[in-house]
Amino acid sequence: MKKHNFYAGPSILPQYTIDKAIEGIKDFAGTGLSVLEISHRSKEFVACINDTISLFKELLEIPSGYQVIFLGGGASLQFAMVPMNLLNKKAAYLNTGEWAGKALKEAKLFGEVVEVASSKEKLFNYIPKNYTIPADADYFHITSNNTIYGTEIKRDLDVKIPLVADMSSDIFSRPLDVSKYSLIYGGVQKNLAPAGMAFVIVKEDILGKVNRQLPSMLDYRVHIKGESMFNTPPVFTIFAAQQTLNWLKIIGGVKVMQKKNIEKAKILYDEIDRNKLFAPTIADPEDRSLMNICFVMAPEYKELEKFFADFAKSKGMLGIEGHRSVGGFRASTYNALPKESVEALVAAMKEFESKN
Amino acid sequence: MKKHNFYAGPSILPQYTIDKAIEGIKDFAGTGLSVLEISHRSKEFVACINDTISLFKELLEIPSGYQVIFLGGGASLQFAMVPMNLLNKKAAYLNTGEWAGKALKEAKLFGEVVEVASSKEKLFNYIPKNYTIPADADYFHITSNNTIYGTEIKRDLDVKIPLVADMSSDIFSRPLDVSKYSLIYGGVQKNLAPAGMAFVIVKEDILGKVNRQLPSMLDYRVHIKGESMFNTPPVFTIFAAQQTLNWLKIIGGVKVMQKKNIEKAKILYDEIDRNKLFAPTIADPEDRSLMNICFVMAPEYKELEKFFADFAKSKGMLGIEGHRSVGGFRASTYNALPKESVEALVAAMKEFESKN
Repeated sequence: MKKHNFYAGPSILPQYTIDKAIEGIKDFAGTGLSVLEISHRSKEFVACINDTISLFKELLEIPSGYQVIFLGGGASLQFAMVPMNLLNKKAAYLNTGEWAGKALKEAKLFGEVVEVASSKEKLFNYIPKNYTIPADADYFHITSNNTIYGTEIKRDLDVKIPLVADMSSDIFSRPLDVSKYSLIYGGVQKNLAPAGMAFVIVKEDILGKVNRQLPSMLDYRVHIKGESMFNTPPVFTIFAAQQTLNWLKIIGGVKVMQKKNIEKAKILYDEIDRNKLFAPTIADPEDRSLMNICFVMAPEYKELEKFFADFAKSKGMLGIEGHRSVGGFRASTYNALPKESVEALVAAMKEFESKN
Repeated sequence: MKKHNFYAGPSILPQYTIDKAIEGIKDFAGTGLSVLEISHRSKEFVACINDTISLFKELLEIPSGYQVIFLGGGASLQFAMVPMNLLNKKAAYLNTGEWAGKALKEAKLFGEVVEVASSKEKLFNYIPKNYTIPADADYFHITSNNTIYGTEIKRDLDVKIPLVADMSSDIFSRPLDVSKYSLIYGGVQKNLAPAGMAFVIVKEDILGKVNRQLPSMLDYRVHIKGESMFNTPPVFTIFAAQQTLNWLKIIGGVKVMQKKNIEKAKILYDEIDRNKLFAPTIADPEDRSLMNICFVMAPEYKELEKFFADFAKSKGMLGIEGHRSVGGFRASTYNALPKESVEALVAAMKEFESKN
């Protein structure tokens, strides 16, 4: 039976990436060696990492003055690295969910942190809008997509201080105006590659302004200078990211991808809104994530939750249980998820409705 | 032509690991999904990481009271994490090469660092022996194998303070008396898996004794509590490590591996000592690494260096150039390198001798 991979992350990758990964594991760039055992200093891998950086710059139209680096350790390490590298006195954070809260917590070790707004009192079911960012803060931090609660900031904010965004789960899902950000970071395990790496897109002139001494591995400038090779980088993960970006380029880039993502999300949100058995957790369409679509059983059908979970599983749906803090269901519809999987889920919802 | 992978790291992996990696990429544990896109919270991956930890404990005979954790970022991040987690006032370091020196440098950010001995004045061509470790230091740090210079501490030292070892390049190459160490760490990209992860074997009772506040991701106790899943771990890398450890277990474990490594190294060192065109860089057999075998052209044949490099390459030898700071040649003979590759290199050295 065909499986539909709705996991929130690590999550579905394009078949293209998987096929190319196997090819590279068998023989990397004609070297006769596997990409799993090639030196990061080999000319073939140096070409691979440089091309991956070029694809980032090309696909996201990154302006000059920005650097792209790849770091081991995932986005969680960036929760600490961002304030270590940028926070002198005060930082402002928007609290839109669990990951935003974790980022905020780590920053407190390095200076004063102002929570400009939080949607916690409503289980993070909306994106706060009217808030004031302290003009004297070193930066303003947002989490653009909230995987657990299913909200997303789908446009580039205009703020007067350096804007820092964790885009772990929506990078490359839409065109970005990178010039509005000073730093964008994220784990790669949603829209790019297998888990185990973070990307950082950073405007170089915001660095070097803090007074604290930084360990080499936690200093962005060290990795920029070393061209992501200060230490041995995650070679295979970078190779896989290169394949995914090649696939994205073949498809037509982030503009085409955004159209596909809007279309996929509409199919599912429309069914959640229509089907009387189910209810959306996020009311405002503006705040609804295109990457993680959360829904629950309607109050009067609450007792059917377990049955629908089993029914969907019997139809090949994997990973649609909602996070334990929200309950219900979550269908992650990242770039690589085909429309067919969304249609299969909607068909299962309709069939379940007709049976109940 | 068959290629012989003598790279210093990332380096050769067992064919078993590569074959199983491809199988897992096609279908992980019968899930119908690729290991590259499986959730780290899936029961199949939880079983995989638990089994990998069990294999560490079984193959290295790790006593109770120790924890095994996997962290993103490689050994270089551990250069900072070790002192962050263990250094209150003073730490002692043995300086046996470039990586030892880097570890020592990072520790200086966190307290007083005593370099108990250094072989730097002789280009690190020996392991210092008679030195005094300050009794009041929080720990003593060694780098058991020095990949660049080709020296190795091949036995477990008896010291009176907590012993910390970077075993990036010789872990699993021989039996260890883990009880003599308080912490062993390393990158996985030599004897275990593709690059992008560090392992840490830590005696739990040495933790929690420093006063500084640690970012969550840099606190060993957080990762122990989270069972290496505080953040999303490098799923594929752990899966690959599991395969390599299965292979090692099938072969007969670290005792059998040590015998093979001694045998391989002897074949090459014997030829370096015999062949008049070449000279070893490490004189004392006790200090000679079994993992990275360094040699140069004999002084009177110095002008042949480039010719031998090209000749060896023409015979399929990859990665035998010495590090730029030493020059000459370096053949890395990690666990996965077959004896046939060493024999092929020796045959090339003999043929080159007869032609010159």
